[in-house]
Order: sequence, then structure tokens, then C-alpha cells
Amino acid sequence: MADIQSMAHAIRFLAIDAILNAGEGHQGVPLGMAEIAATLYARQLKADPADPLWPDRDRVVLSNGHGSMLLYALLHLSGYEAVTTEALKSFRRLGSVCAGHPEIEQHAGIEITTGLLGQGIASAVGMAVAEARLAARFGSGLVDHRTWAFVGDGCLQEGIGQEAISLAGHLQLGKLTFLWDDNHITDDGDTALSISEDVPARFAAAGWHVQSLDGHDIDTISDALEAACADPRPSLLACRTRIARGLPRLEATRGGHSAPLTAQDAQEARAALGWDAPPFEVPAAVLGDWRGALRRGAEVRSAWQDRLSGTADRAEFERWTSGELPADWPKVAARLLGVAQNGAPGPTITASGDVCDALADTLPELMVLCADLEAPTNHKRARTAFTALERGGSYVHCGVREHLMGAMTGGIAAHGGLRPVNVTYLAFADYERPAMRMAALMGLPGIFAFSHDSIGVGSNGPTHQPVEILASFRAMPNMRVFRPADAVETAEAWQIALETQEGPSLMALSRQLADLVRDGAGENMSRRGAYLLHPAEPERDLTLLATGTEVALAVAARERLAAQGIRAAVVSMPCWELFEAQPEAYRAEVLGEAPRIGVEAALAFGWQKWLRPRDVFIGMTGFGASDRAERLYAHFGITVESIVAAGRKLAG
Amino acid sequence: MADIQSMAHAIRFLAIDAILNAGEGHQGVPLGMAEIAATLYARQLKADPADPLWPDRDRVVLSNGHGSMLLYALLHLSGYEAVTTEALKSFRRLGSVCAGHPEIEQHAGIEITTGLLGQGIASAVGMAVAEARLAARFGSGLVDHRTWAFVGDGCLQEGIGQEAISLAGHLQLGKLTFLWDDNHITDDGDTALSISEDVPARFAAAGWHVQSLDGHDIDTISDALEAACADPRPSLLACRTRIARGLPRLEATRGGHSAPLTAQDAQEARAALGWDAPPFEVPAAVLGDWRGALRRGAEVRSAWQDRLSGTADRAEFERWTSGELPADWPKVAARLLGVAQNGAPGPTITASGDVCDALADTLPELMVLCADLEAPTNHKRARTAFTALERGGSYVHCGVREHLMGAMTGGIAAHGGLRPVNVTYLAFADYERPAMRMAALMGLPGIFAFSHDSIGVGSNGPTHQPVEILASFRAMPNMRVFRPADAVETAEAWQIALETQEGPSLMALSRQLADLVRDGAGENMSRRGAYLLHPAEPERDLTLLATGTEVALAVAARERLAAQGIRAAVVSMPCWELFEAQPEAYRAEVLGEAPRIGVEAALAFGWQKWLRPRDVFIGMTGFGASDRAERLYAHFGITVESIVAAGRKLAG
Repeated sequence: MADIQSMAHAIRFLAIDAILNAGEGHQGVPLGMAEIAATLYARQLKADPADPLWPDRDRVVLSNGHGSMLLYALLHLSGYEAVTTEALKSFRRLGSVCAGHPEIEQHAGIEITTGLLGQGIASAVGMAVAEARLAARFGSGLVDHRTWAFVGDGCLQEGIGQEAISLAGHLQLGKLTFLWDDNHITDDGDTALSISEDVPARFAAAGWHVQSLDGHDIDTISDALEAACADPRPSLLACRTRIARGLPRLEATRGGHSAPLTAQDAQEARAALGWDAPPFEVPAAVLGDWRGALRRGAEVRSAWQDRLSGTADRAEFERWTSGELPADWPKVAARLLGVAQNGAPGPTITASGDVCDALADTLPELMVLCADLEAPTNHKRARTAFTALERGGSYVHCGVREHLMGAMTGGIAAHGGLRPVNVTYLAFADYERPAMRMAALMGLPGIFAFSHDSIGVGSNGPTHQPVEILASFRAMPNMRVFRPADAVETAEAWQIALETQEGPSLMALSRQLADLVRDGAGENMSRRGAYLLHPAEPERDLTLLATGTEVALAVAARERLAAQGIRAAVVSMPCWELFEAQPEAYRAEVLGEAPRIGVEAALAFGWQKWLRPRDVFIGMTGFGASDRAERLYAHFGITVESIVAAGRKLAG
Repeated sequence: MADIQSMAHAIRFLAIDAILNAGEGHQGVPLGMAEIAATLYARQLKADPADPLWPDRDRVVLSNGHGSMLLYALLHLSGYEAVTTEALKSFRRLGSVCAGHPEIEQHAGIEITTGLLGQGIASAVGMAVAEARLAARFGSGLVDHRTWAFVGDGCLQEGIGQEAISLAGHLQLGKLTFLWDDNHITDDGDTALSISEDVPARFAAAGWHVQSLDGHDIDTISDALEAACADPRPSLLACRTRIARGLPRLEATRGGHSAPLTAQDAQEARAALGWDAPPFEVPAAVLGDWRGALRRGAEVRSAWQDRLSGTADRAEFERWTSGELPADWPKVAARLLGVAQNGAPGPTITASGDVCDALADTLPELMVLCADLEAPTNHKRARTAFTALERGGSYVHCGVREHLMGAMTGGIAAHGGLRPVNVTYLAFADYERPAMRMAALMGLPGIFAFSHDSIGVGSNGPTHQPVEILASFRAMPNMRVFRPADAVETAEAWQIALETQEGPSLMALSRQLADLVRDGAGENMSRRGAYLLHPAEPERDLTLLATGTEVALAVAARERLAAQGIRAAVVSMPCWELFEAQPEAYRAEVLGEAPRIGVEAALAFGWQKWLRPRDVFIGMTGFGASDRAERLYAHFGITVESIVAAGRKLAG
């Protein structure tokens, strides 16, 4: 039998040594959760450090990511090769796999980036959903693993954490377990400063299986883990712990969280716990126990590999888990354009739904999440719901929980095997933003399809009308922001987004009608980010740059200007980020030297990239208002007439 | 005795008539909550339509703001003059006080803008905090009112709503009551699609007083309102209702929410409920009951006015509630600069804390909210906590609930009497963003003081390092974004923010040390938004534009360039929005014609406003990394050396 107590102490001292060596860090979590973590690894976790990417591994999420040394110590001790002693010694330094907070590196066993509070457990809900859906498709012989999330008080106070509790209970994600570090301490001091809630009762109200236990008692923890595995509900293990356990000066105090450690602290801890090993060294017997801990994972993986080899589903399973598109993808993509072209003029959100429908059979790995807007966003028609009883569905009614939904999107993408599509109104992108930033930071694919892109929302008014949201996401690194002009560009955006593995894509789609501005034959022009939709021959007097439904305004203005002898080119700019990645010569050709008018039903912020001081921008100058869309466009002067008037002035 | 049932029907028919007239709207809430609302107004609400701004009025928040016709009907019927029949007839049209969602117009009785789900109840928590704090200061003779929030399922599913429940319970805000429209329907259909939580149990777990009742039974509602008033805890009235009650075709169905109404629907409702009055008319007896409903408010207000006249506190009470600064404000502000100048070089977040401390006596109406970061943000030193037992404190430990805190900030400002200051890390501004947008949209003052402004965060890494957040808020209308260079500019930003009544101010403050770059004598230069910190005589070869701690880098580079014979001017740009409001001539003078280098430890997005194509930007190009701040600045090339090298190239 492994000596789990000593295994826990090994975590403690690696954490103390690394934090002391780095000169900073958060000892509270690794020291307080050492017994919980060691017991999980010794008794329950299914993983094999020899193959960190094994698709059927259990997922471990350190939601309280500031306690990152817990995770690094676990990975190092259990045999993940990338987490070397040298890596521990470079904790919190550039280039180290042991960054201040965990940063996704699945080869090293780091499943997901965590640290902004609440994101981790919300992502874990996405992982558990992915597991259940994949198990329904491929059977428990290929997919049967658990998601374990270490979680602190902060994650549970966050709204996103509360949303996670509620939906996980509703969906009865029985293979999801939260290991709560109930240490009664947050950054401000005693948790009683800011919470007096009965947390176990709150989980119980949401349908969870709840156990309260001593987080330092290994047998109790072991039994609780067993019980969690046996229960069909998601499980909370409310583990009463002492923060920074083992550091005589700091244990169970506010300073336990992250007060600077001294050499004396380390010495006192060694004396108190009878730990003789020098810094960064682990006694051979303890290391032996650790290296043996996940041996059962290797055995299980070997049997799994046999099952995979024997199944006719192998190729499809491997395609899903690799994230590869099907071999006939070019044909499928061409068909999408056909779907778009055949549509009557309609909202681009409907075009997006059409595309999503058309993919239901050919890309069954799509998983659509929607925040209680099924009817106005049109992405369920070809799908059934994923529910507590029916795991085969590919549409999750996430409820009015956008922030959670954003993090689930990242969690599903990080889990692998499914392609998440996230649907709601663009105004709620602000609710999802922190989670979307995580997806961009992690470089995870995912489609964020937002409807109601502008004042085109109409009478629901300025609370629901994005004016600055496009700019705010164009400012975000590694986020591709699409605002398609019509159904064709919408289909093109889907194609690009699905072919993009290195980060998420946002689509700002319209509630208002969008006429087709292009026939969609030939090249996917949206790949260029911006392109000459209508050139002006032999030479242009003016360039009209527009996005979304304002492209049609520019096209109409071009005709009127032509009647007045002014030759205006029209440039559609569905994705600035892709345009910026084009060769300089292409960009110069598209933009031209003639005076420019930018048209977008949004603020000018950011448009200075394309407009020179004497060029003109036609768009919003502040928040919107409440009236029908067409009246608002007129009220705010985003009209064909405005473009024509400005064009005459500029070209005159 | 008033006929409350008929009063409720009057709400129903005004809502039906207005929605039918507008051709769209949400009938579910006004029809489903008519009895609840009528009973509240007839039996409990303390308000006087003759003086909608009376400081001691009860606050009513329609958190399920899509049901705006409920509020407009209530205001019209109870005698708020601004809500005329004409206004009801222009529901959802430009210029109408009856916008699609309620938009703050306190003269008309609309306390706060609501509609993005969850914002309303979270703001209501802020209002209840404000009431309790003001009552502690001025006594219950002047301040003794309640906050009532109508709330739907959506608001309670949102994370921000869950945060509100948790903190309101913790703070035991006994004068706060949520009236929950438990109609079992959301946009997607039955609430069972997305929630199976025991909502009353969830509230009880957070320390609320909970009653479950029939939301159409007037006596029961009346008793429950009494019980809510009597209980020292915040109260949830879980009112089981039938959505769109009274419309035979739609009652208790998914379409009840907002399916288009027909003339026949209106007719059928009139027949079903025996309502003979023509559209927009209210039978005289019913109108009489409505006009009498708030008569007790007029009496209570009169007595209150007498008490106010008789108290020595009158002038101070009136100053607080008007939002005016004290008469000696210029002297106080000058002293703030002194505080700043005397400080040793330090983080600007510490300078901000120093200023906040220095205001504790002279601006006692400041109310500081902080999300579990007391120690690293330094804004509590001169304050005691506002708690369930001690209402006199001016510092709220909001816990790890940033989104709620943002909305509380708006709620406190909307309530009036206090000046809210909101403190956390800038990375968490993304969590608060939807609430900050609401403050900007409403034009409410409030200081959002964020620390940890950039890669200066250090080893906590990219999750916690803003790179795009400055740009994302510069893109937001009516938000003043300050990034002060040093303690002097920090004090200046505080002065400006406190003198600004028409919208919120954001301060991006540093964890890293900031040397003083200015002595602060004379004019508040930050009012100009940007200014020549160091001119170059007789003529400049180069202009260095910088914000925050990068101003000191520009100053150092200027000296090194001077030694090489290159004359560089340094422009500090603490607030772009204020600079843009300056006269063209001033801006031209500051920016000059020489080549420019922009320096900011953030992405270039937005800097194209100030930089021409051949100018240079020195800053970030993507997300940050985990290491100490000084190493990150070097790693990303944001250094004096980089500026000097670029300057030589540009000016050479």
C-alpha cells in the first residue's frame, strides 16, 4: 500500500521549495489540498503519464489556479516528463512550463489554462458535457472518464461558478466532481467577511451529491471519492482544510494564502513534518509510491487501445478526437455556399442557422450551446437537446447563463472530440467576454455566433444594441471577428472558422434582413478578410469600406453615385484580422488611394486603421435608442443618402 | 377599500393596448405580475408621484426589464405625470419615455435602466446598501425606505443574480425584497429545459427569508409583503404565476412571453375579464383607486419634510443627496495633490489609496467596494467595513463577485446620496464590463479604480495581465479611461472623476512602481487629457506619446536622445477622451508635426488615432507571459532602449 501521507508531504515540500526558489507564489492551496490531491491520484485518477493525450484520460482542472504548484507537483511526482525538476526550479519564469498560473500544455498534463476565478470549474462543466456526449456516440468502451476540479472559495463566489453549479446539477453530470478547499480564508482574510452562505445546502438545492469531510484525513477522502464515483449526480466534496497546512507560522492564517516564504519557514516545516529530504528531492520510497500511483492508468489504457483497434468506429473516433475535418470537407464547404446562395434575403443569423443545419450530418461533432434564445437564433432546427436523460443530443439549453456557456465552449474544445458552437445575442458577448478571452489566450477553436449585431436589434433599445462590442473584440489578440455582409459571407465565415484550429472565431450576425451582395461562386473571398466586392473602372474616385448589412448600403450608394458620374469601389471587410494578415500589396490594392468612406453601424473606434484623417466614417457616435431598426438607421444617419452625400463631398 | 383586482386588470389592459399599438413588446410580465404589482402599490409602496425625486422614497426596480409595460402602466396609473397616455401610445418609439426597456428617468419614476438580465437585481443590492449606510449616518427619521425588485427566471439564472443573492444574504439587507415572477416559462419554453434547482432552497441557503405563494391571490400577496417588511432578512416572494395571465390564447404558454398580439387577443381578454373600457382608458373608479394608492406617500413625505427642516443635518443631507462636492472642494483637491507629491515613488494604486484615505473625512459620502483584494489595492486603510451589524462603515467586502460589484456601483449612484468607488484588478474589469456599460449608458458617476494595469502584474501571468482592456474601454461611449503616469496624475484623475456627474471614470493603476514625472504645481493638466510634459526647444525632432508608467520610460529616453542631439518632446496622455474634447488647435500643438512614437504596455489597437502610418508604436503585440515585471518589459521590448533606437531611426 502506498504511503499517501508521505505522498502528500512530497507535494508540500516541492511547493515550498519552488515558491521559496521563485521568491513568490501561493502556498495556501498546495499545502492545504495535499492530502486530497494525493489520495485522488493514489486511489482514483485514471491517467497515464506515458500518454498525456490519451483521449479517455480523466481530466483534472485546477480551478484555483493561483495554487499552481499543486498541479506542477502532482505532474512531476506522478511522472509527466515535461515537468522536470528544472521546470519546478524555473517556476514563474519565462519559458517554464510551470507558469504563475497553469497555462494549457496538454503534453505536459496541464489540461487547461486557469486562474481567473471561476473559469476552471465552468470549463470543467464543458468537459463533462463533452465526455457524456462522446460516450453516447462511441460507447463507454471508448469514452468513460471523469472530470475532477480542485476549487477554492473564490471560484464558488463568482457568478460563473454559481452558473456552473446550477447547470451541472440540471444536466446531472455524474462524472463531474468538485474538490472544494474549504479553508475559510480568502485574500481579505476570514471568508466570514464576505460570505455566510451554507455552501453545501446551495449545491444540494441544485441537485448535487454533497459530502462534507476532513480534507486532511486520507481514509475519509478515499471513501468520499468512492462515493462520488458511485453516485449518479455531480458530486461536491466539501473538504474542510487548513490553509498552508504544515507551515507553522502561516497555517490557517490569512498569510497562508501567499505571504512570502522564508528559508526558516521551510526549515520549520521540515522539522514539524519530519521531512529530511533536501530541496527538490523526494525520498526514493515516496517517489516509488508516486510513480506507482498511475500504473493502473497504463493498464487501463492498454486495454482501451485494444478496444479501439477492434472497433469499426476507429477512424471516425480518431477523426473526432484529432479535430480534423472529414476527407470530403471541400465538397461539404462548397455545399454550404449553395445553402447560402439559395436562401431568400434574410437575417445573417438565420443564414448561420441554415449552415449549422446543413452540417448536422456531415459534422456530427458540432455541439451547439445556446443561452435561452433558441427561437430567435435558429440553431436548433436540425438537432435534439442534450439532457440529463438523453446524452446523444447536440444542442445544450444552457439557460440564461452566458458566462458559463462561454467557458463551457473552451472546456469542450480543450477536452477535444467535439467542435463547440456558442449562440446568443451580441450584447451578451460582454457577459461571456472573460471566457472568450481564455479561449483566445489558449488558442482553442470555437465558434461564437452572435445575433442582434447592432441597432438593427430595434426597439429593445440601447441595452441590447452593441455599438462598441465589435471594437472591443477586434482589440482582443487571437480572436477572429467576422461581420458577414450576407448569407454567402456567413457560409464563408463558417468554413474559415471550422478550418481554424488555433483560436476562436466570433461572428456578429444580423437580426435585420441582409440582401445577398454576392453570388458566392469561386473563391472564398472572406479568407482575404476584405476584398473588392465592386471595383470601379477604369479608376476609382472613392472607396466605400463596409461590413455586415451596411455593405448593401454601400452597394446601393455606389449605384447612385455612378449615376452622378462618381466611380466608387465597394470593399467588403468581413474580418479585419484576416485582412491585416494579407500581403501589403494586396491590402494596398484593395484600399486604393482614393478618398475613403467607412460604413458600419458601430462606433468609429479602431476604424482609424483604415481611414486617414480626411476620410469619412458613417456610423454610430454613442449608444443606440429604442425604435424599429429602419427608423434607427435613418435617425443615426446610416443610410444610402448619407453615403452618397459624403461621397459627393469627398470626390467633388 | 381599493379594488385591487380591478387595479391589476387596469395594468393588464394598458399593457395589452400599448403592445398592440406598438406592434411588439413583452406581455408576459405585465400580465403575469399585475396582481403582485397592484398589491405592492396599493398596500406597501412608499412613494409620492408629486415628487418622484424625494430621497426617502422606496425604490422600485424592474429587473425583468423586457416587461417594461408593467412599470409604465404602474407609473401612469399611480400618477407620475411624465408617463402620459401619449407616452404609452408611443411605447418603443424614439423620444418616448416608454422605451423598449426601462431607461433611467427618475423624474418620470424610472429609477434605473434595466433589461440585460440580472443587472436590475444586482443594482438593487447597491440601492439597499446605500439606504442602510445613509440611515446609519442620518438616522431613520430621514432615511428609512425599501427596495423592491421585480425579477424573472432569467435574472436568477444569471451569475450576477446569484452573486446578488449571496451578498444580500450575507449583508442581511432586510429592506430588500425580490418579487419573483415564477411562471415556469423562459424564452426557450418550460424552465425545466434549463433549470431544476430548488430556487427557494437556494435563497434560504444564503440566509434569505423565503415565502412561496400564489402570485394571483391578492390577500396572500398582501400578507407576504407584510411579512417581508417585518422580517430582518432580505425577502424572496416566490410568486407562482401564469405568464400572460388574462390572454386566453397565450396564458401559461411559451408564446405568452412576447408572441405578437392581435386585436382578437385584446378582445378575448376583455371578454374573459369583463373589461369594458376602450383602449388606453381606465374606468373612473379604478383610476380613483390608483390615484389614491400612493396618497399615504404624500402624507409620509410631508412629515419627512418637517423632520428635514428641523434637523441640523439638513445642509449636509442635501449636499449628499444632490451629489454636490463640499464648498471647500478646491482646497481639498489642492490638498490631494499635496498627498500625491509627498509620496515616495510607488505604485499608482497606492497613490489612489492615499487619495482615497485623504478624502475619508472631507468626502464621507464615498463608499468603497472591493472584491476580496483589500491588501493589494490599499483602499481600506482609513475606513471600517459596512457589515450586517455595522452599517456605518464605508467599505464593502464584496467578496469575489466583481460583476455584482459593478452593478452595485451603478445602483448606489442611481440611489443617490453616496459616491461609489469600485476597486479590483484590471483583469477583472472584463467581469464587470456589462455593469460598467450600464453605468456609462445611464450617465451615472462612479469611480472604477483598477490595479494591476498591464504586464506590470508580473509572474501571475497572462490571465491576469491586461493587454487589450484599455482599448476595449476606450471603445465604450461615455467612459472616461484614465491611465495616470504617477501619483500626481492619479490625484488629478480623482479630482476630475469626482467632479464628473455625467458618467463613470475608469482608472488603470499600476502594481509596478511609478516615479513622479511631474511636481503637480499649478493647473490640473490631466483635465486636458494629454499635455506636453516636456517640450523640446526650439523645435522638436520627435514626439514621444505615452501613458501610465511608460511616461517615465519616455522621459528617460528623451534625456538619452538629447545627449545624441535629438530633441524629443514628451506628451503624457492620461485620458484620451478628455484630449479628444480639447480644441483642435490645442491638440495640434500637443501632437506636433514631428515623427511620433507611442508607448504603452498594451496593444496598438486604437493608437492609430494618434499615430500616422510612418510613426512607431512600442507596446504589446499579443498576450503577456509569466515572469517578473521588469523582465517582461525587457522581453517585450518596452524599454528606454527601444524608444531611443526607434527615435534615432525616425529622427535620423
